[in-house]
Amino acid sequence: MSTSNERIEHDLLGDLPVPNDAYYGVHTLRALANFPITGIPISTYPNLVNALASVKEAAAMANHELGLLAEHKMKAIVHACREIRNGTAHDQFVVDVIQGGAGTSTNMNANEVIANLALEHLGHQRGDYALLHPNEDVNLGQSTNDVYPTALKIATYMGIVQLVHAMGVLRHSFERKAEEFRDDLKMGRTQLQDAVPMTLGQEFSTFAVMLGEDEDRLTEASKLICEINLGATAIGTGINTSPEYAALACRHLASITGIPVTTSPNLVEATQDVGSFVQLSGVLKRVAIKLSKTCNDLRLLSSGPRAGFGEINLPPVQAGSSIMPGKVNPVIPEVVNQIAFEVIGNDVTVSFAAEAGQLQLNAFEPLIAHSLFKSVAHLRAGCLTLASRCVDGITANRDRLHALVENSIGIVTALNPYIGYTNATQVAQEALASGRSVAEIVIEKGLLSRAQLDEILQPSMLTQPRQAVVFPPQSTEGDAG
Amino acid sequence: MSTSNERIEHDLLGDLPVPNDAYYGVHTLRALANFPITGIPISTYPNLVNALASVKEAAAMANHELGLLAEHKMKAIVHACREIRNGTAHDQFVVDVIQGGAGTSTNMNANEVIANLALEHLGHQRGDYALLHPNEDVNLGQSTNDVYPTALKIATYMGIVQLVHAMGVLRHSFERKAEEFRDDLKMGRTQLQDAVPMTLGQEFSTFAVMLGEDEDRLTEASKLICEINLGATAIGTGINTSPEYAALACRHLASITGIPVTTSPNLVEATQDVGSFVQLSGVLKRVAIKLSKTCNDLRLLSSGPRAGFGEINLPPVQAGSSIMPGKVNPVIPEVVNQIAFEVIGNDVTVSFAAEAGQLQLNAFEPLIAHSLFKSVAHLRAGCLTLASRCVDGITANRDRLHALVENSIGIVTALNPYIGYTNATQVAQEALASGRSVAEIVIEKGLLSRAQLDEILQPSMLTQPRQAVVFPPQSTEGDAG
Amino acid sequence: MSTSNERIEHDLLGDLPVPNDAYYGVHTLRALANFPITGIPISTYPNLVNALASVKEAAAMANHELGLLAEHKMKAIVHACREIRNGTAHDQFVVDVIQGGAGTSTNMNANEVIANLALEHLGHQRGDYALLHPNEDVNLGQSTNDVYPTALKIATYMGIVQLVHAMGVLRHSFERKAEEFRDDLKMGRTQLQDAVPMTLGQEFSTFAVMLGEDEDRLTEASKLICEINLGATAIGTGINTSPEYAALACRHLASITGIPVTTSPNLVEATQDVGSFVQLSGVLKRVAIKLSKTCNDLRLLSSGPRAGFGEINLPPVQAGSSIMPGKVNPVIPEVVNQIAFEVIGNDVTVSFAAEAGQLQLNAFEPLIAHSLFKSVAHLRAGCLTLASRCVDGITANRDRLHALVENSIGIVTALNPYIGYTNATQVAQEALASGRSVAEIVIEKGLLSRAQLDEILQPSMLTQPRQAVVFPPQSTEGDAG
Amino acid sequence: MSTSNERIEHDLLGDLPVPNDAYYGVHTLRALANFPITGIPISTYPNLVNALASVKEAAAMANHELGLLAEHKMKAIVHACREIRNGTAHDQFVVDVIQGGAGTSTNMNANEVIANLALEHLGHQRGDYALLHPNEDVNLGQSTNDVYPTALKIATYMGIVQLVHAMGVLRHSFERKAEEFRDDLKMGRTQLQDAVPMTLGQEFSTFAVMLGEDEDRLTEASKLICEINLGATAIGTGINTSPEYAALACRHLASITGIPVTTSPNLVEATQDVGSFVQLSGVLKRVAIKLSKTCNDLRLLSSGPRAGFGEINLPPVQAGSSIMPGKVNPVIPEVVNQIAFEVIGNDVTVSFAAEAGQLQLNAFEPLIAHSLFKSVAHLRAGCLTLASRCVDGITANRDRLHALVENSIGIVTALNPYIGYTNATQVAQEALASGRSVAEIVIEKGLLSRAQLDEILQPSMLTQPRQAVVFPPQSTEGDAG
Repeated sequence: MSTSNERIEHDLLGDLPVPNDAYYGVHTLRALANFPITGIPISTYPNLVNALASVKEAAAMANHELGLLAEHKMKAIVHACREIRNGTAHDQFVVDVIQGGAGTSTNMNANEVIANLALEHLGHQRGDYALLHPNEDVNLGQSTNDVYPTALKIATYMGIVQLVHAMGVLRHSFERKAEEFRDDLKMGRTQLQDAVPMTLGQEFSTFAVMLGEDEDRLTEASKLICEINLGATAIGTGINTSPEYAALACRHLASITGIPVTTSPNLVEATQDVGSFVQLSGVLKRVAIKLSKTCNDLRLLSSGPRAGFGEINLPPVQAGSSIMPGKVNPVIPEVVNQIAFEVIGNDVTVSFAAEAGQLQLNAFEPLIAHSLFKSVAHLRAGCLTLASRCVDGITANRDRLHALVENSIGIVTALNPYIGYTNATQVAQEALASGRSVAEIVIEKGLLSRAQLDEILQPSMLTQPRQAVVFPPQSTEGDAG
Repeated sequence: MSTSNERIEHDLLGDLPVPNDAYYGVHTLRALANFPITGIPISTYPNLVNALASVKEAAAMANHELGLLAEHKMKAIVHACREIRNGTAHDQFVVDVIQGGAGTSTNMNANEVIANLALEHLGHQRGDYALLHPNEDVNLGQSTNDVYPTALKIATYMGIVQLVHAMGVLRHSFERKAEEFRDDLKMGRTQLQDAVPMTLGQEFSTFAVMLGEDEDRLTEASKLICEINLGATAIGTGINTSPEYAALACRHLASITGIPVTTSPNLVEATQDVGSFVQLSGVLKRVAIKLSKTCNDLRLLSSGPRAGFGEINLPPVQAGSSIMPGKVNPVIPEVVNQIAFEVIGNDVTVSFAAEAGQLQLNAFEPLIAHSLFKSVAHLRAGCLTLASRCVDGITANRDRLHALVENSIGIVTALNPYIGYTNATQVAQEALASGRSVAEIVIEKGLLSRAQLDEILQPSMLTQPRQAVVFPPQSTEGDAG
Repeated sequence: MSTSNERIEHDLLGDLPVPNDAYYGVHTLRALANFPITGIPISTYPNLVNALASVKEAAAMANHELGLLAEHKMKAIVHACREIRNGTAHDQFVVDVIQGGAGTSTNMNANEVIANLALEHLGHQRGDYALLHPNEDVNLGQSTNDVYPTALKIATYMGIVQLVHAMGVLRHSFERKAEEFRDDLKMGRTQLQDAVPMTLGQEFSTFAVMLGEDEDRLTEASKLICEINLGATAIGTGINTSPEYAALACRHLASITGIPVTTSPNLVEATQDVGSFVQLSGVLKRVAIKLSKTCNDLRLLSSGPRAGFGEINLPPVQAGSSIMPGKVNPVIPEVVNQIAFEVIGNDVTVSFAAEAGQLQLNAFEPLIAHSLFKSVAHLRAGCLTLASRCVDGITANRDRLHALVENSIGIVTALNPYIGYTNATQVAQEALASGRSVAEIVIEKGLLSRAQLDEILQPSMLTQPRQAVVFPPQSTEGDAG
Repeated sequence: MSTSNERIEHDLLGDLPVPNDAYYGVHTLRALANFPITGIPISTYPNLVNALASVKEAAAMANHELGLLAEHKMKAIVHACREIRNGTAHDQFVVDVIQGGAGTSTNMNANEVIANLALEHLGHQRGDYALLHPNEDVNLGQSTNDVYPTALKIATYMGIVQLVHAMGVLRHSFERKAEEFRDDLKMGRTQLQDAVPMTLGQEFSTFAVMLGEDEDRLTEASKLICEINLGATAIGTGINTSPEYAALACRHLASITGIPVTTSPNLVEATQDVGSFVQLSGVLKRVAIKLSKTCNDLRLLSSGPRAGFGEINLPPVQAGSSIMPGKVNPVIPEVVNQIAFEVIGNDVTVSFAAEAGQLQLNAFEPLIAHSLFKSVAHLRAGCLTLASRCVDGITANRDRLHALVENSIGIVTALNPYIGYTNATQVAQEALASGRSVAEIVIEKGLLSRAQLDEILQPSMLTQPRQAVVFPPQSTEGDAG
């Protein structure tokens, strides 16, 4: 029985009282009862709410043009959708992010909120569906099976644009550091063993280049998700739609969102296939892997301060330890590592959900969406945080970088063309055994002068190809890598 | 500059205004600024908040007994911890569930909230740390590196107990159905091909047995996480603790929580190792896989209503389709499938985080915790939902079950001992080619009478081993499986 | 001590006898001793062996043009490389597919085999390295760190071309079936519940379209792996190479392989980055997921013969069961499912290996290569097997397809425009409750004639959009999906 | 048409010529044609071949005791099975490790080889199945669906025993090093930042303890796989078996293998469930994760020789680089890392295969087996290799360990009780800013004498709990961890 604070709505299962101030209705209430899983409502993903409002607006306009929806209804629906995109009523999108039913509950939540906003706009009571109906009017010519995937694609596209922007911010941050550290010679390392010299600028430039490549890959992947199946209705055959509908709705959707959506040439395939989400998830995993590798490197290079590599300093952002005075930890790279691990796990979740699709539909798209939205949002937060709270404040320990190169054995590689591989090998072995520097031994042996060494060890000579010189005869041992 | 609504707190990085009504302090504020990742606070996991309060209470009592903490401070801290476990101030545990720093921010959030609750209890102002200090007193003799893993284990143990209970509820639900369907003969299927008869009760009993086994495995795994490292301090050497401290604190913690915690024999190993979490995550994945398989079966068996298996009916819990009148979908099994896929992905995340531990600590425990807590909570919700909103209301389509057995070719297997393999093969081939029933052909051929068939096809004869009979000579073709 | 069947070779660790008939040498023997892991030699991947031979040939030609390698040595090396690509000496590539050392052992195995083949071609003894040396000559101007990734990319590209071809074969197979089944009306299913009609041709066309899209995605990904780092030497700085070398070697490699390789603009980044392999692995996972979904559908649609969907028949390819006469199982789709699951697991392995790269190199490329090569080869085998041993022989059970549509409730959806949603709902409910057909009830109620029904239920009317008709007023219940 | 080198065999699909010297028959040949996937035969897993022979022997003995199998046939079958376990005819187990059909092809391969070995033993021709038949006799009372899972469990158990042994070897190796390095004080590190002192012995003991725990977990998991379903036949109902059969066969199997197998109490559940394999795979993943973490630590600790941590030396096992004289890489830990990554990926594959089981059977057990067998074998090889080729030869750089502690700032933590936290903080800050050592500053400030420092910095004082001392008043800043 309803009170004055409630209205009664009706569905297949019977009557249900709905709070009078709710814009959602009976179907949303059923979903709340059925899916008490995470406690996180879909409004957590504003892009999704806005995307749903865009799809509904596009459909209403197409239906009106086809003579199927009266002008006053169309205008009220369009008004409601725009209100939502302006931020109104996001709190009414309450169904759980993990839900059964292939997105039906999300679609019905949207239909109900839009219908009641539209009714209100027309001066009617919430729930007066005889005048404007969530299904008959807001969902006209649609099915969850085309509306929901289309909205996911719009929302994902929006998210990718935001993520690519954040990656650009981080990339610029690395580029500035690469420029700042352009001339700082340091030891390169392979397999954690000292290798040959490079510059710290080269090291930081790789972080920037990796991000730039990933931005390109994400942008490519975002193009794949512009192919939508709006107009497919239940299973892609477009049953009970007009032949003109799909193209009309698509055109309106492109205009509303500014996203270059196109209608898939095979709507039966497009309705069941989640390949573009799988592809995108794979690219997000790629981004995560590289970000994690980058953060691993930052943590390695800043290890210390005394008993580690100690080549760079990350800016302190919070106190360390009550037991250990002055300890500061690389907490920002650490949080980005964790975001990356989450994204990689999400990719496995997406794989399972995608593989489980059966016949004409994938019922598990809500989980695919939840996983992708989390990955995109957290990666974005991670990039911005890493840029502003870590990379921007990194400094180089120039003395240590210099000492490690000078003291290195690997530097002997650069002397090969001048003192020969055989001499170089003897120098290396002597240095390793005695703990002395290569330069010291080379000078002591009279192989090269300090001036010559200084000449040879200029960064510009060490860190890029140079004209081949005539090599002295070399020994042939121990040379595998 | 602070206003009257703020107090000033101080840390390594300088002064920071803290809202006067906040129980947390400067370290928590730093963490909020540093980790704006998911927007989900650690209070989402009440078990974790309660576990932290338990650990802090145990440490305070141990420190008091060792003469290191004054009685009034101990009592105030104990009071604060108990208030928290009674539900007070959970909203003050605000740091993000994904955070860098190996849990330091969570530990400091707890230290600060407890200190301010204790100060309040003693009649002092929040922030008056000279009288009772978050680090000096609440965190006395502790390090994040022993407190945090210990709290995670307590919280996880609590969660497992709740999950095992929910699995028991679901198991009972399946057991009741197994009993209800005890005598309903049906076709068994292997590789989706018709095999030999069984009962629907046997089919449902497997779902119950699987859950029972998983409850046992979870309980085993929960015992492994009872081994704690409290007393290890920074890296497991117990530096700056008294030799009696670890045992004392452990005893108090066991008493407070009722959980049979023990101190690890090797605290250096215990401080860096996350093996018991990895093990538990693997067992949760096992639970997820079996639940998903069970839900797949429920969806298959209820497929239809006309063009599927149609053997059972799931209770309708929400309306289906605006286009397709009367369509009802298996939304509850679908949501459980998705929870399972999420848990499997979480296990990969846990694997990455665990593998990334380095030297004396795993800095990625916050993500391990976040992943495990999600898995445990969502599996629990899934089990309860599946039991109450699906399994309890399942009904059998007895006519169809009966017809499929009678009409089956697989039933011929049971006739082997009576009509011989050669005759059985001929009957099977004739049935397949003609579309007629095995029984019809057997009777027509005069191999057995209707009465004999009825005798042989009793469930009790078909669905369990029976005395060997003398077999007639058999042909030898086509017999591989 | 060596016997007459052995020769002595020398490396950093000392002397080692090598079998006289072996083309490989001491470094390969060390690797055999160090990595007794899988027992599977790298010759399992002929594309890799051929790719190594291509890279070595290109390097030799570049070095000769730069005046660094004598003509007779270059010619002998080129001859050896071509012999290998003609199939000679593949059995000499013996190091384990899983190996430490970032590919050094594979590179040295190649250097040694090529050197000894070249020495033989010049009329010298195997092992007479003073005349032509594995490192000094075959590996001249190279490092494992540029040779190995470059060879992996060449080999992967070759494998992708073969896989795309096999996918095309399978796609054509599905396309032929789609054409054959073009007019066979059947029930579509969403969430395993009966939905609305479609054609079996539409169902099979989706399998073809999915493959076509995946072929496109693979081809895109293969372009990314055309960017090589040959000339980077140890860490990408190109130390000890001539400025012209990288471009020269790249040009020769493109010419030898016919693959449009280009030199990366940032060789430091390119030497440590494995992003293009991660991307490719993600796309292979996508292919696997869709193939698995396709095989799941084939197994569902052919389930039965009596107690399943029974819509199509897969050709029998081996006998079924010794207990159950006539049982035939969908073994070919099952094996493809398993290949897919392996590929998805391989992707996780690749993720771990990629994330573990440190600083200037990823030491785990051998495992990335092993995983990718397995995925590519097994997917290829799966596609060819699925086409020739399953899809080509699939037949439709037209009577059953027809009966399921006629007997379906879902077909009522198509009657909406003619009898109205209210009538349709009543018909649906009556059909479900009574077990009678929709058509029967519609005719009995006088809503439509048999002739009208036959007109409406033409496939061409049911399975694509059609002109909108004026809808009668509709009820509003139970309409969520 | 057969030649004199061939015999004709017959199955459901017709006649097929079989090479006369083959012990396998027509069903095996069909499988070879159907599954040309990996090229790797099941004989790669000798444990599996031996397990199959054990199951067949047990079944034959049970059938004989039940009066169903003539004595001469039983004896011949038993003889054949023992020959196989002695190593005979393993090369006849030729079907592919990845195969459809739920293991039927493997079971038939075994039936055929055993039948022909038995026929030969009885003095008959291969293929003379009228005298002793692969199905009627060797497979009597069995189904692939009980034989195959039982054999997998036996084989897996054998493999686990071998793996646990290898882990014990590695553990002993670490324990010896822990003893050797017992007194070598070094800096502990958390989050890659210098923490407080410990001993190198403590660090190595954690590697040993982790292995010991994993040995226990594996042994536990191996007990779960002792529960078999032999006697279940097709779907677990035991159709067409005698009530005594299952217990009899189980008793014989335990006796033959020495493994404490028991019959599952619910054979329907046991026939479809793969939970014990999933559990085991999860434990193998745990082992992999810890081994990988251990190898990461070994590589970190041995990084250098000059620009890294340089605390320990791994024994050189192969030459490094042709460009960089004297470079030696940690190739053995690297190969173990890769094995670990493979095992983790295999676990995901197992998850997918397990989740895909449907109704009364999991058709994907061949892939589960393949994945587990690889993981077990490679982990075993990795442990043995890591012990003998790396850990046994590790040496400590005692001077550097000592210098890093003496030079560390973290050591100041141990001085807290003696000089107070405030003084300690000042010392730490001065040390960090000036680059000087803590000891130097402490002595210079007159806070402690060299003798006192030497007393305090004894390993036994630093690396374990000690009696609490009265602390001087402390400052409260910057204390979070």
